[in-house]
Amino acid sequence: MSAYASLREQVREANLAIVRAGLVVLTFGNVSGADRDAGVMAIKPSGVPYEGMSADAIVVLDLDSGAVVAGEARPSSDTPTHLVLYGAFDGVGGIVHTHSPYATAWAQAERELPCLGTTHADHFDGAVPVTRRLRAEEIEGDYERLTGEVIVEEFARLALDPLARPAALVASHGPFVWGADVAVAVENAVALEAVAASALRTELLRPNVAPIGDDLRGRHFGRKHGPAAYYGQLP
Amino acid sequence: MSAYASLREQVREANLAIVRAGLVVLTFGNVSGADRDAGVMAIKPSGVPYEGMSADAIVVLDLDSGAVVAGEARPSSDTPTHLVLYGAFDGVGGIVHTHSPYATAWAQAERELPCLGTTHADHFDGAVPVTRRLRAEEIEGDYERLTGEVIVEEFARLALDPLARPAALVASHGPFVWGADVAVAVENAVALEAVAASALRTELLRPNVAPIGDDLRGRHFGRKHGPAAYYGQLP
Amino acid sequence: MSAYASLREQVREANLAIVRAGLVVLTFGNVSGADRDAGVMAIKPSGVPYEGMSADAIVVLDLDSGAVVAGEARPSSDTPTHLVLYGAFDGVGGIVHTHSPYATAWAQAERELPCLGTTHADHFDGAVPVTRRLRAEEIEGDYERLTGEVIVEEFARLALDPLARPAALVASHGPFVWGADVAVAVENAVALEAVAASALRTELLRPNVAPIGDDLRGRHFGRKHGPAAYYGQLP
Amino acid sequence: MSAYASLREQVREANLAIVRAGLVVLTFGNVSGADRDAGVMAIKPSGVPYEGMSADAIVVLDLDSGAVVAGEARPSSDTPTHLVLYGAFDGVGGIVHTHSPYATAWAQAERELPCLGTTHADHFDGAVPVTRRLRAEEIEGDYERLTGEVIVEEFARLALDPLARPAALVASHGPFVWGADVAVAVENAVALEAVAASALRTELLRPNVAPIGDDLRGRHFGRKHGPAAYYGQLP
Repeated sequence: MSAYASLREQVREANLAIVRAGLVVLTFGNVSGADRDAGVMAIKPSGVPYEGMSADAIVVLDLDSGAVVAGEARPSSDTPTHLVLYGAFDGVGGIVHTHSPYATAWAQAERELPCLGTTHADHFDGAVPVTRRLRAEEIEGDYERLTGEVIVEEFARLALDPLARPAALVASHGPFVWGADVAVAVENAVALEAVAASALRTELLRPNVAPIGDDLRGRHFGRKHGPAAYYGQLP
Repeated sequence: MSAYASLREQVREANLAIVRAGLVVLTFGNVSGADRDAGVMAIKPSGVPYEGMSADAIVVLDLDSGAVVAGEARPSSDTPTHLVLYGAFDGVGGIVHTHSPYATAWAQAERELPCLGTTHADHFDGAVPVTRRLRAEEIEGDYERLTGEVIVEEFARLALDPLARPAALVASHGPFVWGADVAVAVENAVALEAVAASALRTELLRPNVAPIGDDLRGRHFGRKHGPAAYYGQLP
Repeated sequence: MSAYASLREQVREANLAIVRAGLVVLTFGNVSGADRDAGVMAIKPSGVPYEGMSADAIVVLDLDSGAVVAGEARPSSDTPTHLVLYGAFDGVGGIVHTHSPYATAWAQAERELPCLGTTHADHFDGAVPVTRRLRAEEIEGDYERLTGEVIVEEFARLALDPLARPAALVASHGPFVWGADVAVAVENAVALEAVAASALRTELLRPNVAPIGDDLRGRHFGRKHGPAAYYGQLP
Repeated sequence: MSAYASLREQVREANLAIVRAGLVVLTFGNVSGADRDAGVMAIKPSGVPYEGMSADAIVVLDLDSGAVVAGEARPSSDTPTHLVLYGAFDGVGGIVHTHSPYATAWAQAERELPCLGTTHADHFDGAVPVTRRLRAEEIEGDYERLTGEVIVEEFARLALDPLARPAALVASHGPFVWGADVAVAVENAVALEAVAASALRTELLRPNVAPIGDDLRGRHFGRKHGPAAYYGQLP
């Protein structure tokens, strides 16, 4: 049996799930999952079609060094971004990167995605931030790693909790979304695209609409997260 | 055979129907159905995936007390909203709540959905109202019950007949839709989303377009509803 | 074998085709086909689901009198509109009525659909006209017949050839589309929806864009229609 | 075994791929592929439905003379456009023409498609140009050949490298997209439609948004193309 079989299978399945959910065309997307105890993450191979991808094709890397520990293929070119996010954001167990149609439009417009309703608040406890543009020397340098760093920089600047605001829009690029595990990260990526679409349509109906109040946002986020959560079934 | 088997099966099927119709992503939606003679309603369990959901997973509650009378799972967190609507609106036999993409955009924009054409008038005898925002103390209190109450309040304020205007947009949230039975409620939810999409596009082509006249609206609603209806087959 | 079996089968299949093409939700659409030699038309029954509809469910009526000559069901409530169009427009052998999403938006905005590109010109030799609104007394009267009459009136007013401009947008309602036979009518209905969507998006990118020139429009329409057509295979 | 069996099969499959990718309704699209060594191109027959099309239905023509060398059917009416592009653009091995919904909207608006993000830059090293309108005498003359010529003219005017900018929007018409082989051409056509949709939505969120910087655009194009490419697997 191959090493890290369960993690690789979760990651393989999650990469297929983002295609089924309509978040991906061609090969514009990748999902990774971390096993913090084992100190590794598993990620999609670069530029490989989703259909027919085996669990063994998933590449496993050391979370600290980035060295490949299992798998023959080259990992996703966005691997350094994932590594930075796992390093900076405790408790994150899965990361999804897509160029999903509506979230990418907000990223390209360099606008944060405001919290305009309860669908948003069920998953993100406030606006989803947009990063600054990378500078020329950053783009010419260690570009993918620095893409992760500008996300971390923005979360530090705004003093955001990554698990309460589990997504960022990279300017001129697209969304990175995460969660406590791979399945939650995929769910958040699906939710982000849905609320990005709704928010655009809301803007068309009422330009510069105000975000929902803190009370409603907190109530909905709290229904699903934290000690007072009452959504879903008992564990 | 399980209690309320037929009602639960109808409700199970209706919850799947709103997914097939594209009104739902993830678990953002729920359908209930009432058996007025038995004094109960049946509703989707909270946070449970639609696919593979059995009729026994559907929870049955007393319409008056809200007590669970059949089913092991926790009912939808929106259950109190459904109970208020059944209590206030005579003749309602099914209720659908979704965050469907276009209806939610109107709700988030806090705009009533105007009647711009015959597709709308075939199902809703005028604009679909939008509620006021809930106040902070309402959100902190019995939130889901009060979500139902603001719908009832708006229908009272505008003196609307709930069966002739079988939907409301909850501000910053999304649509609740109903009908004489579960199947009609689902049909109205599908129609609402279609007319919400058409109305947004109409606005883009002609901002602040006027609603259709009372005569055309009445003719179309009357083709399908009431004593002079002549649409469809003889019973 | 049932009467008019071939015509009914064509009409049944065409009613399914408009559903598959995404032009219809619920039962908002109907297709008819005429056999001019037999003096009849066949049309979808009113309010009947498309799936599982048999050819025998299709209702056959006399083109002149409108009397049912075969079929047990009530014909579509829009039947009088179809009869008027067959009566007024020589050479029409199939008619499609839908509330397709984008064409309906133009109808609700009461704007003619301008010819903005070659996709449009391949099927419609100029703007697709929008009717005037029906007057109150027309709506209270023989409404469906008069819906046909306002289409005919608009074509007369603009001196349009119905076979070169095989569609009309009924104000506040939706499109009626036709063709020399049922299959061509369905093809034109699919094309109308596609160009209605493209035209809306073009308007968003360049408000009040000018229609294409007569020369390009004529060249494309002529590639597919008339004596100099050179698109497709030799008969 | 039929002549040029492999090329025809690639072209047949590519014509089906653009339908599956949602780029085509009805028969509004065609793909060709070239075998430069054999001096031929293969293209879809005119007006033939995609479903059930056999490889033998694909028409093979001499790249220089345009004479049919294999196949019984009439080739696509757009064949002369393809021949011009193969003649002018060295290294092109596949061409896709569609009326895909969003790319066509930009073509109808006569606006070049700006490079607003990395999805665009991964495939096109800058804005996708829009041609001038054809003049009346060009439309009346050898229209399809001259459609190719205005594309070539625009690339010459802007001094663009066709393989680094593998698409053009023909004014009032739609996109032509190409690549080093048939599969790459199809991939570029899918990417073009995705970025055309994103760019429209970006414009709605931030009118007249500026294109991304040269540094980011170059970095992303270079990740996938040229000597320093590091996306995907080793050959």
